[in-house]
Amino acid sequence: MENIFSDRITDVPKSFIREILKVTIDDSIISFAGGLPNRQFFPVRGLQKAANDVFADAGSEILQYANSEGYLGLRQFIADRYRKQEGLDIPVDDILITTGSQQGLDLLAKTFLNEGDDLIIEEPGYLGAIQAFSLCRPHFHPVPVQEGGMDIAALAQVLRKRHPKLFYTVTNFQNPSGISYIDENRKDVARLIQGRSCLIIQDDPYGDLRFRGDRRISFKRLLPENAILLGSFSKTVAPALRLGWLVAPPPIMEKVIVAKQAADLHTDYLSQRILHRFLHDNDIDAHIATIIHQYGRQKEVMVDAIKQFFPAGVQSTNPDGGMFLWATLPEGLSSMRLFEAAIAKKVAFVPGTPFYINRKDTNTLRLNFSCSDEPTIIEGIRRLGASIRELT
Amino acid sequence: MENIFSDRITDVPKSFIREILKVTIDDSIISFAGGLPNRQFFPVRGLQKAANDVFADAGSEILQYANSEGYLGLRQFIADRYRKQEGLDIPVDDILITTGSQQGLDLLAKTFLNEGDDLIIEEPGYLGAIQAFSLCRPHFHPVPVQEGGMDIAALAQVLRKRHPKLFYTVTNFQNPSGISYIDENRKDVARLIQGRSCLIIQDDPYGDLRFRGDRRISFKRLLPENAILLGSFSKTVAPALRLGWLVAPPPIMEKVIVAKQAADLHTDYLSQRILHRFLHDNDIDAHIATIIHQYGRQKEVMVDAIKQFFPAGVQSTNPDGGMFLWATLPEGLSSMRLFEAAIAKKVAFVPGTPFYINRKDTNTLRLNFSCSDEPTIIEGIRRLGASIRELT
Repeated sequence: MENIFSDRITDVPKSFIREILKVTIDDSIISFAGGLPNRQFFPVRGLQKAANDVFADAGSEILQYANSEGYLGLRQFIADRYRKQEGLDIPVDDILITTGSQQGLDLLAKTFLNEGDDLIIEEPGYLGAIQAFSLCRPHFHPVPVQEGGMDIAALAQVLRKRHPKLFYTVTNFQNPSGISYIDENRKDVARLIQGRSCLIIQDDPYGDLRFRGDRRISFKRLLPENAILLGSFSKTVAPALRLGWLVAPPPIMEKVIVAKQAADLHTDYLSQRILHRFLHDNDIDAHIATIIHQYGRQKEVMVDAIKQFFPAGVQSTNPDGGMFLWATLPEGLSSMRLFEAAIAKKVAFVPGTPFYINRKDTNTLRLNFSCSDEPTIIEGIRRLGASIRELT
Repeated sequence: MENIFSDRITDVPKSFIREILKVTIDDSIISFAGGLPNRQFFPVRGLQKAANDVFADAGSEILQYANSEGYLGLRQFIADRYRKQEGLDIPVDDILITTGSQQGLDLLAKTFLNEGDDLIIEEPGYLGAIQAFSLCRPHFHPVPVQEGGMDIAALAQVLRKRHPKLFYTVTNFQNPSGISYIDENRKDVARLIQGRSCLIIQDDPYGDLRFRGDRRISFKRLLPENAILLGSFSKTVAPALRLGWLVAPPPIMEKVIVAKQAADLHTDYLSQRILHRFLHDNDIDAHIATIIHQYGRQKEVMVDAIKQFFPAGVQSTNPDGGMFLWATLPEGLSSMRLFEAAIAKKVAFVPGTPFYINRKDTNTLRLNFSCSDEPTIIEGIRRLGASIRELT
């Protein structure tokens, strides 16, 4: 059985994070490595009641094959929410329920990418997107993100020479960096993309988890023809259900549905019905407010602890929402070396390298603040600071 | 926004069946067109109780991100079942939970197929497989199936000239034809494949729905190195949950998991836990026995009605299980023309064409017997017989 694998599967970067998470299963380790929402906020009772109610009311219908687009009631909920939150008028027919927003990436890769097509991705960027796109073997053009958003000069330089089909961005509290694009930056990006055959994939799993500041303008408003939106219930309700969505205009949706059918026929319909019932019977905004309050406090504690315990040469972001912040060590200090030193002190994080295209090592790291309580954050950052000092 | 789509997405055959199903939504139409299990057998109360119990017992754990391989308890159940039913010793690590067995096809296509790679598919073959594989643009080599299994001479002829990487087969009560491979035919296929770098994908969604005869030998026993197994709970429990599985040896599984992570991170974990609890607390074999009893009777009624109402020149299969049978009209009689005539008489089926690679029209059709009661089957076949007579 020789040479049996496809070229594409050998291109996909192995999930380094997966390997790291194995190390951190040890309960004695303080882990800032995870990318999980805090399970203490999962609405166990609410979803249990919703499940019980849909079984009682809808019976066998919720167990049959369903349409590929997803449950109409759930898509209507999403459309209503876009209208309420952002004043966006999205027809339900432009909304597809996906098996997590990760699947949206897979479907878009299949729908648009030929081998070697140009694609713009943030640097650092979301690893799951790098993996999903890699399967279609595009030419990645990483463009740096920094405080306030994308490096516009670097973006302009790529666009002078290349004709990217796709531009992938997590505009709010990005994974891994916690960076958000301010409105002015979004407008600058839109001006550069306008008039091009380039789709902006605006992936927004964390948008509802804003601790401070106002909601920013959507690319759907700035460039309605070019914008594709991805959303997720994983961070606001629960990830296990794998329920996300994709918004695209009809000519694109028609092709995406073909990819969806080939991928899994449709997303778990029982879970769609349970989630819809839960959203109907509960105040999701009140629920999200509780999550934000806690995550916001934990972020503040982490930022304060960093100020107290990290050497002055370490930079870090101070996100307005989400689950992660990003630290940059002094030039030349390897975050892989720091990882080893930190594990010896029983604290873990994700080194930045997997979030870049083709980098062997970096001086950056991702720190998760959603899953640790305040004393644990302080102790973990103290240990991490001590590890950094050892290496400098 | 010109020329933005990928080449692959334009290759995927549009689901003609989807279009047909739209026609048959009209309640006054007797439909043999669907591919659905009969919802009267969905264990609504059992799954409701299982859902309630896992929420009560496991709490927030069932709502968190989970591992890509799937819930260990469910994989153990599958391994135990292979041992009990077929004497196969499958390590749990060789089992991946997939988002329906349709996803297994998507993952295997990605893992193995470069553009232009040779792939053997049955003729007629499962449309969902044709769609999933098409996205990786292989060179399809259709090999006819007939009473008793594959046309061995035709298979040998393909293998003399080509080196297929994948061989896709539904060996039991195939969709669309209802045909099963007898043991001798399986052994003949295995002899031809042995020693080649060719994987046999044995997709078996209907295997448990056997009305008569004994279980046949698995390719996992005949060619353990070459066999990949796909399975599904859609026809034995309920399709809405999108729960299937894939069995592959470790070097292959390692790559398939990479594709799985990129596709949707993991399959809905809440549904995995609910299904596992249901399987643990209920006698699934007793449940399946009830389904088989009914489907078997309905199949007999359809076969008898065909004998009574169809003209002598129409051939049809008489399956030992599953949900479909296959009819072949006299040479030159278009099943698309018949479809139009039949709709006028308020009866629907799926014309055979979409189950072939590159055929414009055929004289074959698929008839579903799982979803209609006995009087409806008799009346529908009577009308269909009258439609055939009109055209001959």
